[in-house]
Amino acid sequence: MNNRIERVISAMKAKDLTQMIITDPMSVWYLTGVSVEPYERLFALYINDTGRKVLFLNNLYNVPESPCEEIWFSDTDDQISLIAGVIDGKTRLGIDKAWTAGFLIPLMEACPGMTPVLASDCVDDCRAAKDAEEIALMKEASHINDLVIERAKAYIKGGMTEKEVAAYIDAEYLKEGCEGNSFTTIVSFGANAADPHHGPDDTVLEDGMCVLIDMGCKKNRYCSDMTRTWFYKSADPEYAKIHDLVRAANEKAESLIKPGVVLKDIDAAARDLITEGGYGPNFTHRLGHFIGQADHEKGDVSSVSTIVAKPGMIFSIEPGVYLPGKFGVRVEDLVLVTETGCEVLNHVDKKWSVLH
Amino acid sequence: MNNRIERVISAMKAKDLTQMIITDPMSVWYLTGVSVEPYERLFALYINDTGRKVLFLNNLYNVPESPCEEIWFSDTDDQISLIAGVIDGKTRLGIDKAWTAGFLIPLMEACPGMTPVLASDCVDDCRAAKDAEEIALMKEASHINDLVIERAKAYIKGGMTEKEVAAYIDAEYLKEGCEGNSFTTIVSFGANAADPHHGPDDTVLEDGMCVLIDMGCKKNRYCSDMTRTWFYKSADPEYAKIHDLVRAANEKAESLIKPGVVLKDIDAAARDLITEGGYGPNFTHRLGHFIGQADHEKGDVSSVSTIVAKPGMIFSIEPGVYLPGKFGVRVEDLVLVTETGCEVLNHVDKKWSVLH
Repeated sequence: MNNRIERVISAMKAKDLTQMIITDPMSVWYLTGVSVEPYERLFALYINDTGRKVLFLNNLYNVPESPCEEIWFSDTDDQISLIAGVIDGKTRLGIDKAWTAGFLIPLMEACPGMTPVLASDCVDDCRAAKDAEEIALMKEASHINDLVIERAKAYIKGGMTEKEVAAYIDAEYLKEGCEGNSFTTIVSFGANAADPHHGPDDTVLEDGMCVLIDMGCKKNRYCSDMTRTWFYKSADPEYAKIHDLVRAANEKAESLIKPGVVLKDIDAAARDLITEGGYGPNFTHRLGHFIGQADHEKGDVSSVSTIVAKPGMIFSIEPGVYLPGKFGVRVEDLVLVTETGCEVLNHVDKKWSVLH
Repeated sequence: MNNRIERVISAMKAKDLTQMIITDPMSVWYLTGVSVEPYERLFALYINDTGRKVLFLNNLYNVPESPCEEIWFSDTDDQISLIAGVIDGKTRLGIDKAWTAGFLIPLMEACPGMTPVLASDCVDDCRAAKDAEEIALMKEASHINDLVIERAKAYIKGGMTEKEVAAYIDAEYLKEGCEGNSFTTIVSFGANAADPHHGPDDTVLEDGMCVLIDMGCKKNRYCSDMTRTWFYKSADPEYAKIHDLVRAANEKAESLIKPGVVLKDIDAAARDLITEGGYGPNFTHRLGHFIGQADHEKGDVSSVSTIVAKPGMIFSIEPGVYLPGKFGVRVEDLVLVTETGCEVLNHVDKKWSVLH
């Protein structure tokens, strides 16, 4: 963790920052090992370029030990004054993107000589490239995701609702010892699949519908995320052809990933293939997003992403084609950039198939 | 919902604010009926004192209709410029406490003549007093919580781990059609109960341990939250006496709640009783918190809370006594302030009992 803090301080120096406040609980854990669910309460790590590390902690938090100076407070204390007493209030202060206005605005009022600077990248770019311990945890979470989607595939029957299938998946995650989901499980039948973010409802599975499942669990803090699309009883030939196209785009993108590649080129390769197939306007979102402790972390695989792939990065590859009112298909894996290419973390067959 | 917006605009005028940005998804839904899970993406409602209402929406959101002007964008658009083009950048701008630095700092840089003002209260104070529809939903969520804790009480057996019991509760919520939990279920055995925020682990239930369960579900967007503490096989007489004291504090507080009461006086009544019993220093947190769409909403029942109770307010009453390394007890209900007093939303027996 000292190594991680050193990397953050180097990034701060590159931005001419001498100090920074980090409040994303996942970043604070990443840098200190201190895990807190603060909800609306203050939880913040201050670091500066002399190596000072100060944690602001509510008496309610259970923090057995930390590698930082600790400033404890209660709900009724003037917490802004405590922070103002630690920071240099006459210069720039890096702030991570997660800090909320409920604390930031009062701190600005208390320290009129301080200029807040958005400096999330100093931490987020470190978190984007996973170390060995993190990679092992990400693989474990995706392994569970593979197990549970296979069970869901066997479980699904005509007459079930989307909500029933989603509840089954969520319960299986808990049986596997997960903390829970990494995001709300998406189960979309038929035309509902044309909305990439459809929430499971009481729609009933009928013959000929597509079945799109986008799901992920969280195990030992780290997330998985995968999408598969099947058909129930029979597949409309046009839809099956679209599925082949989307899968080809997924596989094309994955075949090109290696250190040094710019991620917008990966997005373009998948998008071009779908455009050539005649469905470019129906691929309405970016190709992928980074993932780790959160399902969506900083960094994406989009038409404007200038991120250069490097070993340890983990992100999703998830092309999709959506025909409003009719049908949708998405094929998503997580991939890990290796020294020579990439490793796909999901091992579930991604060709279309017909459920019975 | 127009009535809700009118109440917010009145509150803004009382603060000399002509405009405001609201970003808490629960507040935006409360005011517009538009429900989005934006994760890290921009989702914001702008309102001003002329009645203008503008929603900033990502193309990925599924928003069938809204009672607002809509400004749509994609992930790759310059979203800060879109906001800067709508607000009056030369005056004060109310901001709710939930907005993150990732948007607020760039907006301040884009609009140097704009002064951000923390103005959450304009919305949060409206949300604190529930209307009839909300009260019905809160009662339904607490009814499910009552059902599920009774089932958990029957389910618990020696040799089970905290995690097993928590997983059982979470799965029962899903069976009842809940969206999920309103917070991570707390199951604490024995000395673990001395940490009010203990997370369920592999601790095994043994004879003589206390069993503290703090749990809540979310149904149709609204939350429940309740704590009960029992003993397994046998109760240490000192611990049973402490439980009687904590329950008496809970019941004392609930007996005093009615419109016009200042909430710090309710906190004091419960705290004084526990202090007279000799355990004042072991009651380490506020007496309660407001609740609605979120488990913790603005407003608390604490030693410094100047909030005056009024009909429709719903909050928790949860005194506790914690003996580090030994034992803990907490007794928590949700209460609704009525015209003449309060209605307790939980109906599960709160006396200590021995499980077998």
